[in-house]
Amino acid sequence: MTSHLPHGLPGLFVALEGGDGAGKSTQATLLCRALEADGHTVVRTREPGGTPIGEALRSLVLEHGHGEIDARTEALMFAASRAAHVHQVILPALRRGDVVVCDRYIDSSVAYQGAGRGLGTAPVLDVNLWATEGLRPDLTVLLDVDPAEGRSRRTAGAAPEDRLESEPDGFHASIRAAFLDLARLAPERYLVLNASGAPEELHAAILGALPRVSA
Amino acid sequence: MTSHLPHGLPGLFVALEGGDGAGKSTQATLLCRALEADGHTVVRTREPGGTPIGEALRSLVLEHGHGEIDARTEALMFAASRAAHVHQVILPALRRGDVVVCDRYIDSSVAYQGAGRGLGTAPVLDVNLWATEGLRPDLTVLLDVDPAEGRSRRTAGAAPEDRLESEPDGFHASIRAAFLDLARLAPERYLVLNASGAPEELHAAILGALPRVSA
Repeated sequence: MTSHLPHGLPGLFVALEGGDGAGKSTQATLLCRALEADGHTVVRTREPGGTPIGEALRSLVLEHGHGEIDARTEALMFAASRAAHVHQVILPALRRGDVVVCDRYIDSSVAYQGAGRGLGTAPVLDVNLWATEGLRPDLTVLLDVDPAEGRSRRTAGAAPEDRLESEPDGFHASIRAAFLDLARLAPERYLVLNASGAPEELHAAILGALPRVSA
Repeated sequence: MTSHLPHGLPGLFVALEGGDGAGKSTQATLLCRALEADGHTVVRTREPGGTPIGEALRSLVLEHGHGEIDARTEALMFAASRAAHVHQVILPALRRGDVVVCDRYIDSSVAYQGAGRGLGTAPVLDVNLWATEGLRPDLTVLLDVDPAEGRSRRTAGAAPEDRLESEPDGFHASIRAAFLDLARLAPERYLVLNASGAPEELHAAILGALPRVSA
């Protein structure tokens, strides 16, 4: 059984999106484990990064201390990192027939830089579709989280906040709205979940929404 | 006397373009010296770079040894560097009324990544116009050089070739054609010079083509 997917490749591409503290890592872990148990070859990756050049860009753009970074520069660095990620990691995996589970993809740039930074969602989407040659996920799981709840979940962890996490709650509220708008525009490609649900329940919902793929 | 320039700012923006070995650095030095002697405040800068984040990106994209860098990633890294350069260096200088002399600008990306790498000149131009909020030079000096001659001039210097310089001559021939095409599309903003001319003659031609600005 071969899947019939928009990108025309034998693999399956699942992206996890949502604000910081939404639980994307936990769900990625549960999803990868279930898919592997079912006999799939799974490539777990994250945005930005996943390649040597992408990880270098990730460090430059997320760490404090590299001087001023204006919004367009930030958006283009994420797009550059994503282009490398798609061409070196995601497309080769989809051509092999693997399942790709990606922590953040284009929607994060549209939400964080387009809405959060005020660059406009349409041009940021355009730049990213050019960067990726139009590759979209077969399923995007949006873990919708209230910004205040996301922040308290992050604070419970030990890591200090990066350049984006440390932005105020209004920034994160506009991001949440942008994610939900993207999901409303293409409901057939999205699963929107309330991130405050129990992890196992969220996991079951994600499994149920997966397009069918051959093992 | 105030200049009447497309960007509407009091300063003057001059870009030097052309293949490697065309003599851009020599002409930039002569031009800056003449403008300073004439009482102008001159900001000499280069693409990509001119800012801490831009210089970091320049190192990543030009040095060998950072693993595979596909064409779109390369183009987006140059665009990111340019966005930082415009917002942190060029626009503030133009607002102060300074003269900006820039070694490479958007045309280099259109030529190297759009034509040389085969990404297409139109989308690379679009991404860069978004990166720069549409800022174009008041005058672009194109130092047109035969690729073989440019290579022999570079080889006369000591520095080893970077990732782009070390591409074969066919790559550099397509770049030369792209530069000339850009100049033909907007002749009022371009001065095209045969780079094999004597440096002092080229310098005089550039001075003669400068839009008039107040000192």
